[in-house]
Amino acid sequence: MTNAAAPRRRGRPSRTQTEAGPATRDRILEAAREEFSERGYDKTSVRGIAKAAGVDSALVHHYFGTKEQVFEAAVEVVVAPALNAPAAVEEGPLDGIGERLTHFFFGIWENPATRTSLLAVLRSAVNNETAAAVFRRLVVAQLLRRIAERIDVPDAELRAELAASQLVGIAMLRYVIKIEPLASADVEQIIRRVAPVVQGHLTAT
Amino acid sequence: MTNAAAPRRRGRPSRTQTEAGPATRDRILEAAREEFSERGYDKTSVRGIAKAAGVDSALVHHYFGTKEQVFEAAVEVVVAPALNAPAAVEEGPLDGIGERLTHFFFGIWENPATRTSLLAVLRSAVNNETAAAVFRRLVVAQLLRRIAERIDVPDAELRAELAASQLVGIAMLRYVIKIEPLASADVEQIIRRVAPVVQGHLTAT
Repeated sequence: MTNAAAPRRRGRPSRTQTEAGPATRDRILEAAREEFSERGYDKTSVRGIAKAAGVDSALVHHYFGTKEQVFEAAVEVVVAPALNAPAAVEEGPLDGIGERLTHFFFGIWENPATRTSLLAVLRSAVNNETAAAVFRRLVVAQLLRRIAERIDVPDAELRAELAASQLVGIAMLRYVIKIEPLASADVEQIIRRVAPVVQGHLTAT
Repeated sequence: MTNAAAPRRRGRPSRTQTEAGPATRDRILEAAREEFSERGYDKTSVRGIAKAAGVDSALVHHYFGTKEQVFEAAVEVVVAPALNAPAAVEEGPLDGIGERLTHFFFGIWENPATRTSLLAVLRSAVNNETAAAVFRRLVVAQLLRRIAERIDVPDAELRAELAASQLVGIAMLRYVIKIEPLASADVEQIIRRVAPVVQGHLTAT
């Protein structure tokens, strides 16, 4: 029965395991994150994700739907801390919001586990309109809008986006393109320089 | 003779034209820029460039060498204004360098002719290590180093890179991922907000 369900697979988890529900869903999601990270959106296929997860493609479709939906689910997991972060970033005095946002941002980028996924999101968003739309929907609509609401000034949305652009630009040059000395600079040194800039974008008059 | 040299091409320039030296070289370069812009580094082939230019692949190799070298040549043309810009950016008082750099940056990004090529450079650098190396060599080594020398302070290179990261981040969110309201904001409004930030990165104590 196991072999009938997955005749070409060897050394994979048993059928019982592959259909274990939440565990399988998580494994597909993890495989999706890895595939998107390594290959980018364009080169990743549902079949490749299924293969990496040791399941049938139909199961990927069953749990997530289309490739775009798998991508969105994978991105959601990646940016989940970011989407939960606004609470931590929003709370506390307004004159410390730039530092809290900057600390949070480098926290997730300096962590190798989340960095891989963030790189995948960034790379995919740069190259693919579908992935860019997911980025806009998740990052902008959910994270930046909440920060804009918190600062509550004219041009709040533009301010939040300019603050984000400073952080995204550093991620680009430090983690993606890896220019020196920025790529090897002590992260605390970067935060010291950048937090006031982010704060300025958000609240300077 | 024309048909023998390019039997499958119709409505293409004649053989005389295709081998006209500088004009041909420029046409290949233009085709390379368009191919890299549309497809990115990974998906662009020398054959595709040759086809778009209406020449034989051998001619592309003859003028430029490998795909990486065609790419570098195409990028050099794109960033040529940037590589010549430091003179304009460097000249004048140091307390206006941030504004000059910011004006220069948005000048080339707001111009549709150069924007397409810049998008190609950015997209390619994000996805391909070879393209990233070209980016580092041209943009960082030539442009940022000169700005760092001009400001001549401790951490000058890191400062120049943080200033660049602010600009690159806006390019990412405004022109690549196109988040709103940043994507539609008046460029002069953006420059007013960003020039002081760039200046601060470069010279603030």
